[in-house]
Parts: sequence; structure tokens; C-alpha cells
Amino acid sequence: MPIHIRSEFDAELDELKKKILTMGSTVQGMVADSLIALTTRDTPLAQTVMGRDRAVDLMEMAIDELAGRIIALRQPAASDLRLIIAALKISTDLERIGDIAVNIAERVVELNAEPQLKPYIDLPRMVDATQGMIRGALDAFVAGDVAGAMKVLESDQIVDDLNSQIFHELLAYMLADPQTINRATRLIFISKYLERVADHATNVAEEVIFAIQGRDVRHGNVG
Amino acid sequence: MPIHIRSEFDAELDELKKKILTMGSTVQGMVADSLIALTTRDTPLAQTVMGRDRAVDLMEMAIDELAGRIIALRQPAASDLRLIIAALKISTDLERIGDIAVNIAERVVELNAEPQLKPYIDLPRMVDATQGMIRGALDAFVAGDVAGAMKVLESDQIVDDLNSQIFHELLAYMLADPQTINRATRLIFISKYLERVADHATNVAEEVIFAIQGRDVRHGNVG
Repeated sequence: MPIHIRSEFDAELDELKKKILTMGSTVQGMVADSLIALTTRDTPLAQTVMGRDRAVDLMEMAIDELAGRIIALRQPAASDLRLIIAALKISTDLERIGDIAVNIAERVVELNAEPQLKPYIDLPRMVDATQGMIRGALDAFVAGDVAGAMKVLESDQIVDDLNSQIFHELLAYMLADPQTINRATRLIFISKYLERVADHATNVAEEVIFAIQGRDVRHGNVG
Repeated sequence: MPIHIRSEFDAELDELKKKILTMGSTVQGMVADSLIALTTRDTPLAQTVMGRDRAVDLMEMAIDELAGRIIALRQPAASDLRLIIAALKISTDLERIGDIAVNIAERVVELNAEPQLKPYIDLPRMVDATQGMIRGALDAFVAGDVAGAMKVLESDQIVDDLNSQIFHELLAYMLADPQTINRATRLIFISKYLERVADHATNVAEEVIFAIQGRDVRHGNVG
């Protein structure tokens, strides 16, 4: 394409990347705040997380619309097209992370209405890991960094292990004292929600690798 | 576009729709079989569900690749482009339904190793409802049927209600007898997995409406 069109086109792609980054940090913030609302027993904070869902939905729509407009207008090929397709798939994953943050916040509101079952040690660790994964995947998207995206894939196991550990610990609580069942079940849900956040971050990383390399490394086709 | 190109293009879009339908019935079958494996205590059947995950992953890749190729080759605009974008998003949702079916199958293998906790009445109902939703959404996609897609959105509440009912029933089991906690927790997971299947079917229906109408009715913008 002519050079002045190419530079307009590049500006549009930058805009698309920027929108993905903004959406990413919004949903990251929602996940982080939902857990802060748990550890600090701050129910109003959990409620603000629920209120941010609508903004995330609008962000996804804006990204999809921009991606569609760029495709229609510029008729991109090869790596540019793959980048736009990746953006369309990434926006789906980020929207889902926002939904999960709302689910966490709902459980937190319920949990904060009862006495705290136990100190929260591993859940904040899970949050840290998922935050790192989301950020890593999106940085890799913007920078076109395959190695960075690969590192995200490796982190998924850490979150899976923490989830499994938390599940067994809470199962022990429930068996020892049925009074804890209600709370333990909700904490198990939160742990599973965080595991799903990590799964979505993994998807994003795979989509980034696909966008950059043009060969599909998703679903275990790496190497 | 010239008429002979248009007819090639239509054939490609038909191929894309066919691939989506095939992927849809595959993941539908996985969800159905995972529950049959529970109600008939058929662990080998649950294991075949796990084994089908890879095929689903390959289907998603094939759909995304075909969609990318059509965009690059035909440079479609307006409603054709929206259809292809919808296919890219729908393949993400279907792949996730396949993953969830595998999760259900994993819990079924665990549950089948212990005596059955209770007769399964509501879980098969949930499965029926989610099957209807997936089929309804994909039929609407192929037929370009907005009314059909709208009906799917309405069914989501049925599944949410069943999930909530199952959760409370199993909570009662756990409170009455801690010996049931392990099994009840796993059944609660299965119920939540099915609720997520319904969420993905809802997403597909919303994507269909977007593809047909060109205005974004996702995320509660209907009406």
C-alpha cells in the first residue's frame, strides 16, 4: 500500500493495540480489586467491581467494531490480518475475565457477611500470578514478543497447582467442621475463578504467538 | 463483486458455516456424553470425552484459518464481514464448551469411583436446556434467524435457576452429612460447568444477532 496509507493504517493498528491494553488493565484491576475486597473485607469495593462490568462490555464492542472497520477499509493481508484476528479473539477473552471478576466480587460480598474462615495466603498468590500472566500476554501482544508470550504459557501450571492445593485445604476444613461448608465452598469457587482467569490469559498468549508467527501454536502445537 | 466470484465466495461462506455446525455438534455431543457417563456410571465413556478435546482444538484452528483466508482473499464488507467475524468469535466459544465438557468428564470419573450420592434429576435437565441453546444458536447462525437467536437468550435464565437450585440442594446434603462433601462438591462443579456452557451458548446467540443486524446487541443492548 502507498506510504501515506500505510502510516494511517499503522496508526489504526496502534489504536487497536491501545484499546486492547486499556481493556486489559481494566479487567486486571477488577480481578485485583475483587481480591482486595476479600482480604480487607471491603464490601463496597466488591460492589464497584460489579459496576465496572458494563464498561468492559463496551470496550469489547469498540474493539470489535474498530477491527471490523480496519479490515473493511484496509483489506489487510498476512501478518496485519493475523494481528487483527488476534485482537478480535483477545477481546473475547478479556471480556470473560471481566465477567469472572464480577463472579469473584459476588462471592466476596457473601463471604464478607460472615466471619472470616481463615487467613487468605494462597488466593492473593494466585491473583499475583494471574496478573503477571495477563500483563505478560498483553505486553507480548503490543511488542510482538514471542518469547514473552511463551513465558506466560509456562506460568499456567503455577496457578493450577495453587488451585488444587486450595481445594484440598478447604475440603479438609469442611470435613472437620460442617459449619464451614458455606464459606469454604465460596472460597473454592473463587480459587476456580482465578484458575479460569489464568486459562484466559493463556489463550491470549497463544493468540499472540499465532499473530506473530503465523503458525498456529495454540492448543499444544508449540515446538 | 463479479457473479462467478460471488458464487465462489458464497461457497466459502457455506463451508465456514458447515465447519461451525460440525464443531457445534461435536462439543454438544461431548457435553451430552459426559452427563450420560455420570448417570449410567460409564467411566470409559467419560474418558472418550477427554480424548475428543484435541479434535475440537483442531476444528477451531481450521475455522480461524478459513475465516482469515476468506477475509484476505475476498476482502468482504458489511454483512459478509460481520458473518466472518462472528464465526471467529463463535469458534472461541465452542472451543471453550469442549474444554468444559472435558472438565465435567474429569469430575464424572472421580464421582463414578464412589457410591452414587443421589438420583440425578436436575443435572440432565440442565444438559437438555444447554443442548437446546447451543443447537438453537447455531441454527440461527446458519439460517440468519434473529428471532431464533433471541429465544436462546431467554433460555439462559432456566439454566441459572437450575444451577442455583442444585447448589442449595447439595449444600443441604453437605450440612446434613460431611461424608457427602467430596461428592457434593464435585456435583456442584458439574452444575456450574453446565451453567457456563449456557453462558457460552448465550454469547454465540448474541454474536449471531450482531452478525445479522449489524448493530451490537451483545451485553444487554437488545431493544
